[in-house]
Amino acid sequence: MQTEQQQTKMKVLIVFAHPDKQSLNHSLLEVTTNYLKEKNHEVKVTDLYAQNFKAGVDGDDFLNHEQGKRLFLMRDGGSAYNEGKLSPDIMEEQAKLDWADLVIFQFPMWWYSMPALMKGWIDRVLTQNFSYTGEKMFETAPLAGKKAFIISTVGVPKESYSKGKLGSIGEVFFPIQHGTFELIGFKVLEPIIGYSADSRYSNCFEITSKAIKERIDNIDTIEPMKAQSSYN
Amino acid sequence: MQTEQQQTKMKVLIVFAHPDKQSLNHSLLEVTTNYLKEKNHEVKVTDLYAQNFKAGVDGDDFLNHEQGKRLFLMRDGGSAYNEGKLSPDIMEEQAKLDWADLVIFQFPMWWYSMPALMKGWIDRVLTQNFSYTGEKMFETAPLAGKKAFIISTVGVPKESYSKGKLGSIGEVFFPIQHGTFELIGFKVLEPIIGYSADSRYSNCFEITSKAIKERIDNIDTIEPMKAQSSYN
Repeated sequence: MQTEQQQTKMKVLIVFAHPDKQSLNHSLLEVTTNYLKEKNHEVKVTDLYAQNFKAGVDGDDFLNHEQGKRLFLMRDGGSAYNEGKLSPDIMEEQAKLDWADLVIFQFPMWWYSMPALMKGWIDRVLTQNFSYTGEKMFETAPLAGKKAFIISTVGVPKESYSKGKLGSIGEVFFPIQHGTFELIGFKVLEPIIGYSADSRYSNCFEITSKAIKERIDNIDTIEPMKAQSSYN
Repeated sequence: MQTEQQQTKMKVLIVFAHPDKQSLNHSLLEVTTNYLKEKNHEVKVTDLYAQNFKAGVDGDDFLNHEQGKRLFLMRDGGSAYNEGKLSPDIMEEQAKLDWADLVIFQFPMWWYSMPALMKGWIDRVLTQNFSYTGEKMFETAPLAGKKAFIISTVGVPKESYSKGKLGSIGEVFFPIQHGTFELIGFKVLEPIIGYSADSRYSNCFEITSKAIKERIDNIDTIEPMKAQSSYN
């Protein structure tokens, strides 16, 4: 057994999206941040609504892009990255990702996915050459080896996903956990889901806080999952 | 066999997201729009970048929301809808959806999903009570019976999805086709995917244009799919 003193000190980036500071999600963000600090990990938070993060990638993101010239988003992003000509807000986020050992994506599940502002962060920050190249994806990607997991909340109980018409959590998060995290080489840990988040009769906050603290305590020993649609 | 004259005249809404007017996607949008008009269908286009569509849902979307009061996004969206107090840009999109028989979502596939601006359209426009209620989802949802399909482009060849490490198109689009379209009662037709879209050696434009025209010709008789992860 590992003692607390022996635990690796981590650099943790939390990418967060919720518009309301009074939300359950914001309370959970505080739990995560405080507990990480209590355990002497370093924490940086990207609060997308608070930063008023731009969601739509376009030619303005590439400072070396000639106005009016046809856009080839993947290549243009890759060349702007190589030349240090990405928009400053993108470069700032890339620096945080370079710095981090662990990236936590926290968001309420909206329409089987992340809020649009977080998708904008994915679309804009994970440029070619920074997070992948034509040859370097999955295990050989530039950011390979960093850990990542999702903390999310859903309005319905767990049974709605594992047994219901909605599908499995693995199916819901496949584009994020496989098509994004695994594709850029992240080791993906099981998502932490707060169920029945919308019901005032639920104890979602307590249950999810406990799961978050356990995850942080066990972060050195927990095995990465393989992100599959069949995961419940 | 149905003759052209007997084909049902449709009201078609195209929700479109690409930042560049010179893009392959924009050319395909013109093909779709022109062919629909040629066949005497009515067409409305929501061009999200051109409209500078707001991506992040927040309290400002609900004109009856008291500043500083805790947000409950689903319920607040539902009550703003009931009271006619949604932001005007949301009401405009809802009116287009009410009007349409068929909704086409056209976008380049970015990170196994739609661009952030289109996710913002989904997050903001598909409010409670307008597109679902606690009791009315899937076949009983308020918009049930309208048809929908995706037109998308990807950089890699078809084999990368059907046989490769990337996963299947059914897995990639499960959150959109099942978790969104089917959940709000849309009859989902097979997606039209333009493969090898980024290669200047490909004939992606011609192949995809042909598929779009065939889809429009056959729209009355084509059977809805069941959106499953296993679909290739």
